[in-house]
Amino acid sequence: MISITIIGSGNVAHHLAKAICNAPHLDLVQMAMRNIDNAPNFVDRSKITTDFSNLKEVDVFLVAVSDDVIEKVLLQIAQPQRLIAHTSGTSDLNISTENYRKGVFYLLQTFSKLKEIDFKTVPICLEATNELDYKLLEKVAVNLTHSVFSISSQQRKSLHVAAVFVCNFVNHLYAQGEVICLENNIDFDILKPLIQETATKIKSVTPTAAQTGPAKRHDTITINNHIQFLSDENQKEIYKLLTQSIINHDKKL
Amino acid sequence: MISITIIGSGNVAHHLAKAICNAPHLDLVQMAMRNIDNAPNFVDRSKITTDFSNLKEVDVFLVAVSDDVIEKVLLQIAQPQRLIAHTSGTSDLNISTENYRKGVFYLLQTFSKLKEIDFKTVPICLEATNELDYKLLEKVAVNLTHSVFSISSQQRKSLHVAAVFVCNFVNHLYAQGEVICLENNIDFDILKPLIQETATKIKSVTPTAAQTGPAKRHDTITINNHIQFLSDENQKEIYKLLTQSIINHDKKL
Repeated sequence: MISITIIGSGNVAHHLAKAICNAPHLDLVQMAMRNIDNAPNFVDRSKITTDFSNLKEVDVFLVAVSDDVIEKVLLQIAQPQRLIAHTSGTSDLNISTENYRKGVFYLLQTFSKLKEIDFKTVPICLEATNELDYKLLEKVAVNLTHSVFSISSQQRKSLHVAAVFVCNFVNHLYAQGEVICLENNIDFDILKPLIQETATKIKSVTPTAAQTGPAKRHDTITINNHIQFLSDENQKEIYKLLTQSIINHDKKL
Repeated sequence: MISITIIGSGNVAHHLAKAICNAPHLDLVQMAMRNIDNAPNFVDRSKITTDFSNLKEVDVFLVAVSDDVIEKVLLQIAQPQRLIAHTSGTSDLNISTENYRKGVFYLLQTFSKLKEIDFKTVPICLEATNELDYKLLEKVAVNLTHSVFSISSQQRKSLHVAAVFVCNFVNHLYAQGEVICLENNIDFDILKPLIQETATKIKSVTPTAAQTGPAKRHDTITINNHIQFLSDENQKEIYKLLTQSIINHDKKL
């Protein structure tokens, strides 16, 4: 049994806590957070604490808080014997000069509290200062998912940027699609099979091979019609930039 | 039994022909194309023709060719008694001044020849000059899919633009993610669960509610780190524009 304490109460902390509670060989000992009202209801109240200075000793501390407060949290909980891994995509392994056993436990997924997720498919990217600590983090990870990777801080930063492109920006394009539908009295649901198929396609085909549409066909007439059609300047700019980017991507190949 | 002839041999023509061949109440009589080498192997060779001027009479002609040649095709096949529907997202119902019964049969999906698709989920958007012809196109459509919509030319144009955002542009962001992975010696597969979850999420949550990431959190430190990290000017521009667009979208709500 590996004993674990989670610091944080956001989306990542919430899903991580649930997955750990469901893993037979992992024991969630405590969950520490600033505001007790954010505690998930599936964790026993006796395990919730707001006192960061008096945490029980466990095998692994997982710090799932926003990037701007990681260092502050580490200042409060760092102790030489403790293995403390943060879950940030951008922060370095050596984010703090405090003395503790340093690790990273990065979940490459988008989490919302109300949306259930199959945690077994979530890629977990690990890093640690020494091999023994890496092995311990790996033991935790394989109890949670089928998908565990050794990823350096530099690689993790690049993955985080890539994730912004394929998740956050993609979702924003869905939002733009929804706006266009609403403005034209069309139910956004009509676009959902297309959205699903676009995502499903790249399971078996590279994105470059899967590319379709007017930019890919260099269909200037349709492209100009679309730009004229759009009345929102921001949408026009996005349309022009991504169209040009598709055309340039083709040229590079 | 409704008799149908398809004009064209591209991705849409290919998938449409397959779906019609599999539909018990629809009869694919002919498939006309410029180059016989593009004929799909599941259609009997005797049904393939390159002679547009001598087509058999059928209930419905479906013109699935690229936008720039629709008018040319109509010039060759238009006859007053024929119902001819094109499958274009952008072209008007009245694209041609030729005398024929005009219709639109627009499939709102992304098709690649080598990728199988569950045609029953493909939304089909219909339009016709008169009610009787609309009903006939509707009969064809309900034999192919569960999802049939009456959509005006203006609405269809807006749908096509929206489809470019949620499909073509989204796929291009996947391609950018792949480029970033390759540059950092990371297997693109690691991003695939995130891509799938991002698409799955909006089945149950609106894109606006599903938005996560540094732009949504107004996390300026991470945003600036990401912009610095990107060496490609084009990727930098996309990052800046979409980040600003997410922030502005939030302000509008």
